[in-house]
Amino acid sequence: MNVEDLILVSVDDHVIEPPTMFDQHIPAAYRDRAPRVLTDDDGSEYWQFEDERAAYMGLNAVAGCPPEEYGLNPTRYDQMRPGCWNIDERVRDMNANGVLGSLNFPTFPHFCGQLFARAKDKDLAIAAVRAYNDWHIDEWCGSYPGRFIPCAISPFWDPMLMADEIRRVAAKGCHAVTFSENPEKLGHPSLHSDHWDPFWAACAETGTVVCLHIGSSSSLILTASDAPADVMISITPMNSFLALNDLMWTPIFKKFPDIRIAMSEGGIGWIPYALERMDYVYEHHHAWTGADFGGLRPSDVYRKHIVTCFIDDASGLEQRQRVGVDSITWECDYPHSDSTWPHSPELLGKTLTDIPDAEIAKITHLNAMRAFQFDPFAVRGRERCTVGALRDEAVDVDIAVRSLGRVNPHATSATDLAALARPASLDQ
Amino acid sequence: MNVEDLILVSVDDHVIEPPTMFDQHIPAAYRDRAPRVLTDDDGSEYWQFEDERAAYMGLNAVAGCPPEEYGLNPTRYDQMRPGCWNIDERVRDMNANGVLGSLNFPTFPHFCGQLFARAKDKDLAIAAVRAYNDWHIDEWCGSYPGRFIPCAISPFWDPMLMADEIRRVAAKGCHAVTFSENPEKLGHPSLHSDHWDPFWAACAETGTVVCLHIGSSSSLILTASDAPADVMISITPMNSFLALNDLMWTPIFKKFPDIRIAMSEGGIGWIPYALERMDYVYEHHHAWTGADFGGLRPSDVYRKHIVTCFIDDASGLEQRQRVGVDSITWECDYPHSDSTWPHSPELLGKTLTDIPDAEIAKITHLNAMRAFQFDPFAVRGRERCTVGALRDEAVDVDIAVRSLGRVNPHATSATDLAALARPASLDQ
Repeated sequence: MNVEDLILVSVDDHVIEPPTMFDQHIPAAYRDRAPRVLTDDDGSEYWQFEDERAAYMGLNAVAGCPPEEYGLNPTRYDQMRPGCWNIDERVRDMNANGVLGSLNFPTFPHFCGQLFARAKDKDLAIAAVRAYNDWHIDEWCGSYPGRFIPCAISPFWDPMLMADEIRRVAAKGCHAVTFSENPEKLGHPSLHSDHWDPFWAACAETGTVVCLHIGSSSSLILTASDAPADVMISITPMNSFLALNDLMWTPIFKKFPDIRIAMSEGGIGWIPYALERMDYVYEHHHAWTGADFGGLRPSDVYRKHIVTCFIDDASGLEQRQRVGVDSITWECDYPHSDSTWPHSPELLGKTLTDIPDAEIAKITHLNAMRAFQFDPFAVRGRERCTVGALRDEAVDVDIAVRSLGRVNPHATSATDLAALARPASLDQ
Repeated sequence: MNVEDLILVSVDDHVIEPPTMFDQHIPAAYRDRAPRVLTDDDGSEYWQFEDERAAYMGLNAVAGCPPEEYGLNPTRYDQMRPGCWNIDERVRDMNANGVLGSLNFPTFPHFCGQLFARAKDKDLAIAAVRAYNDWHIDEWCGSYPGRFIPCAISPFWDPMLMADEIRRVAAKGCHAVTFSENPEKLGHPSLHSDHWDPFWAACAETGTVVCLHIGSSSSLILTASDAPADVMISITPMNSFLALNDLMWTPIFKKFPDIRIAMSEGGIGWIPYALERMDYVYEHHHAWTGADFGGLRPSDVYRKHIVTCFIDDASGLEQRQRVGVDSITWECDYPHSDSTWPHSPELLGKTLTDIPDAEIAKITHLNAMRAFQFDPFAVRGRERCTVGALRDEAVDVDIAVRSLGRVNPHATSATDLAALARPASLDQ
């Protein structure tokens, strides 16, 4: 394995939406009520929609900043690396990091479009959701064919509308949707109910992967009110552990045998334990709980339906056979603070050294390409997709770390961190 | 490795306290106000202390029952296997399972003595705590030297009293105490505060291991109100994940370099991931959070201070070098529903097949003996401590599964399960 020869498809990155995003996509009737970027007296910029002021749009968009400055979120576009919100600069940053493909989660609407779901005028809200998706699919992802895996948001206040939107975007070539790891926390029925069946049915029918990003329940786990921020950051993957456990005991997989779910930013090192634990609980307890996986074990069901991803996860890769070599994908997490940008190939390469090339290919790109119906080779040819080839196109990209001159809030507590940018901080 | 030659020390089992436990231990002045077992009209028995009715005393004490009956807790002593509450029968059940040594957590006072901490009369409460410990150490564990690792409860409403009790029981040979994985959830300062320093100091000074059992925060994680019971059972180890993360970023280990913490019933398969994640968070974020481990990484600190345990955990054993071979111990969890009793040696043996004998010895007994200052070999001689030798002493023990004729509440939800036996169900 040569780092230059890796082909990297990242299934979890983030877009900071540019202020002009709705201009070409919202119907004229709603133009003056579309979400817009406003400016505070202190120069901070934020999105406003109806009477809700969203969190600062630069939430955790710290790529290229020194780690000393991670604690404060950018509050203006000019405090962020342009690759956060400008598609041309984004692709240049991807090239500089040797990343071929990227799936981008939303920022200002929160992880699955909560901002729109809270809207009072649902006609406006559905127009905004469709405009968001059109911008994302046609303008953001569409500008660079073969470089992006489009991922839609959905009007999740109404499962029938969700199903319509899934079919609409699938017809435009979008085969991923971001949904909630725990909709009950958002005030909707849980994953155990049949409320979402029209949505699941549309996703199964169109081969749309349902992405459950950590934090998409708008609830972060806090251990103690005076715990330092490190604790909260460290335990975020447990959102995914909880979501996966919850999911596996729902009737979804029995009802929709073709459904595929991606656990986004959840990591993989805990998966072998989680599967063993679920199987143990099934074997010990199904006689009284009535759990029924059609003669299978929870881990068997998992293997048919779940796609996982990791940033840097040596223990998970070591146990990749237990995780499932055919279901592991990789992520870069650009431009968030956990990202390995711009050194992803080198850092990832360190944990791939003992893995056969065929398995590396699955983990770094083939699994993601198959799961998300993404075929960059058809667009660029495989030889132009490697880390080495992409970096050759980006020799002029400046990747130097640059201070934004922001104040370090040292010793921030988990509670303070959560409060910094409510309500969107809850979705980080 | 021959299953008959294993030596098994279990660091997590449970005692159902017998109704006579206070008779010989509570001072005369408090005798008529000691906790007592009362009987309901329907024949159910329960502990009463002051004006609080504790949960049914047989919480999850289902050893020997068919799995179809796990869903309902025994509500009378005669519904339980006598080994739950009778010391002679307990030792016979241990022998039948080839288990040499056992650490027993309390049941009716909850995991760390919450029932006493809620008492109005604190003089009565401290008398009850001391009586509880005297019964546990002298009568329960003391009846069979070399078979039990005593584990005290503490008067955790007052850290100075805690320190006194730690020193008092240490002088009687008790080197373990059960404390809370998250005292803030019990209405006390968190592990990040200096509130508990007198307690930590006494534990460090006396070599007392602080055991943090899952559920000792009296809070279980629930994903959704209509999640089936399986989800709640499956995610319980996450209490330990949260507690470990919380703990590692506290100042405890800097202040008390000799302290040892046992994560009880937490499992081990998730530890490699947790350590990697903590190190990653430290490396990525300490520049702005100010986290400081004295030049070490969180995983280095972990190795010096933490003891883990598992029931059945193939992935964790496979990654035992990452977990730490010198810190892994084993547990049986008798008489709870997750227990492998009476087939522990055979089930454990299946996951030990590829492990060198010297490491098996550490994991099955040597680590526990060292951590808890427990020396059964000095009492019985090593040759009488093996699975084979112990089972030879128990050929007459009836281990047949027996129905108690209780109704199966099939399809219980997680919420229902939690409500079945409040408040103690919260501590399960």
